[in-house]
Amino acid sequence: MQNIKLTLSYDGTNYHGFQVQQNAVTVQAQLEAALQAVFGQAVRVTAAGRTDTGVHALGQVVNFQVSTRIPPERLPYALNAHLPADIVVTKAELVPPDFHARYSAQSKVYRYTIDCAPFPRVLTRYYAYHLRYPLDIHLMQEAAAALVGKHDFRSFMASGSAVKTTERHVLRLEITEQDQYVQITIEADGFLYNMVRIIVGTLIEVGRGKRSPDLAAVIKARDRAAAGWTAPAHGLVMLEVKY
Amino acid sequence: MQNIKLTLSYDGTNYHGFQVQQNAVTVQAQLEAALQAVFGQAVRVTAAGRTDTGVHALGQVVNFQVSTRIPPERLPYALNAHLPADIVVTKAELVPPDFHARYSAQSKVYRYTIDCAPFPRVLTRYYAYHLRYPLDIHLMQEAAAALVGKHDFRSFMASGSAVKTTERHVLRLEITEQDQYVQITIEADGFLYNMVRIIVGTLIEVGRGKRSPDLAAVIKARDRAAAGWTAPAHGLVMLEVKY
Repeated sequence: MQNIKLTLSYDGTNYHGFQVQQNAVTVQAQLEAALQAVFGQAVRVTAAGRTDTGVHALGQVVNFQVSTRIPPERLPYALNAHLPADIVVTKAELVPPDFHARYSAQSKVYRYTIDCAPFPRVLTRYYAYHLRYPLDIHLMQEAAAALVGKHDFRSFMASGSAVKTTERHVLRLEITEQDQYVQITIEADGFLYNMVRIIVGTLIEVGRGKRSPDLAAVIKARDRAAAGWTAPAHGLVMLEVKY
Repeated sequence: MQNIKLTLSYDGTNYHGFQVQQNAVTVQAQLEAALQAVFGQAVRVTAAGRTDTGVHALGQVVNFQVSTRIPPERLPYALNAHLPADIVVTKAELVPPDFHARYSAQSKVYRYTIDCAPFPRVLTRYYAYHLRYPLDIHLMQEAAAALVGKHDFRSFMASGSAVKTTERHVLRLEITEQDQYVQITIEADGFLYNMVRIIVGTLIEVGRGKRSPDLAAVIKARDRAAAGWTAPAHGLVMLEVKY
């Protein structure tokens, strides 16, 4: 058996998220159907992370076990021939047997894009969240600094999630602006459910002047109600998984 | 009667081009339906230029005559409320009676985007033409230089087009590369039918090493067969009309 790592990108607009579920079109279901077509057998993949409905990926990673003679470098072409145009495999590699897309990951990088033009830019309407209000990105950067580091991010987790620990290490949280697009890039050793979108929603409230940039108290509260709203899914892209 | 100028953007993916035609969904038809809804009367618009099926716009300009009390600055909001999400009016201005979207234009700017990554980037698959082959952009820049200026562009016009003169003045033809996207920006006082896409197709042949960068002979031939292929529509965006 070989352990194969795939890097894939997808436009999440038309999918009910990554993970397979009954009666819904998901990225995983499409990918596994393509793998079955190529290998002639059922293949179950393990992903670095699940993405929600409408969330995109440029560097999602999965791995799976299979016995095949197809050289890994041919796999992207073989799989893409069976995948719809909104899912593209960009890399396939043979990895050691103990490689696990989720547990072996050192960190993941997400990027959220906000379109701050007076009217939504049509060509990015599915990939950037349009906000009618001006954002003070200096205030947002000031607020973001408090989130970098090892913290208990319970306040930034969708309520009702079950996890062993709510401590996560945010390695980087950058906010940039170019051509009226504000981009928030966040890298962490792991993310709680909806963590990126709640952080973005909270930072937007700061940028609009509706919330103090001092987020230390929000972290300390360990209460979802202390943080801001959950920003819409379509502005979010899973950019990279680092191993 | 007032003469009103609108600036609009659209994703051309789902339209049979700009211009109204029988039994086909076009941008103009959608826009005129929105104008009728807002003004309560039939309105016919004049556009700066027609765009083909699949071609996008970020700065298309139209004008029309109407008698209304709605202040121009309110019009984008009123019209967008009646338009689908892939057509967005970004500006409305009252202009002098003699302003004509097409005849008053000094120049138009188009941009063509080529995705040169090994696999197509999914999030730009409708807005960039994916090319599997590497391009030598220095050769393309060298070739482009010959096209700048006042020339007879008959070789770069779809055959069968009827125009008074095939002379056009190309003011600027820039080729840049960033993040594996090659962008070709071209500004001219006017364009012949398919001129941008034939220029792009010809420059791609140069960039792939399949054609000499010396395009002076192509211009001189005054024959469509002397130029290269017509690049696909979906990489093209009408960027701006200058008055």
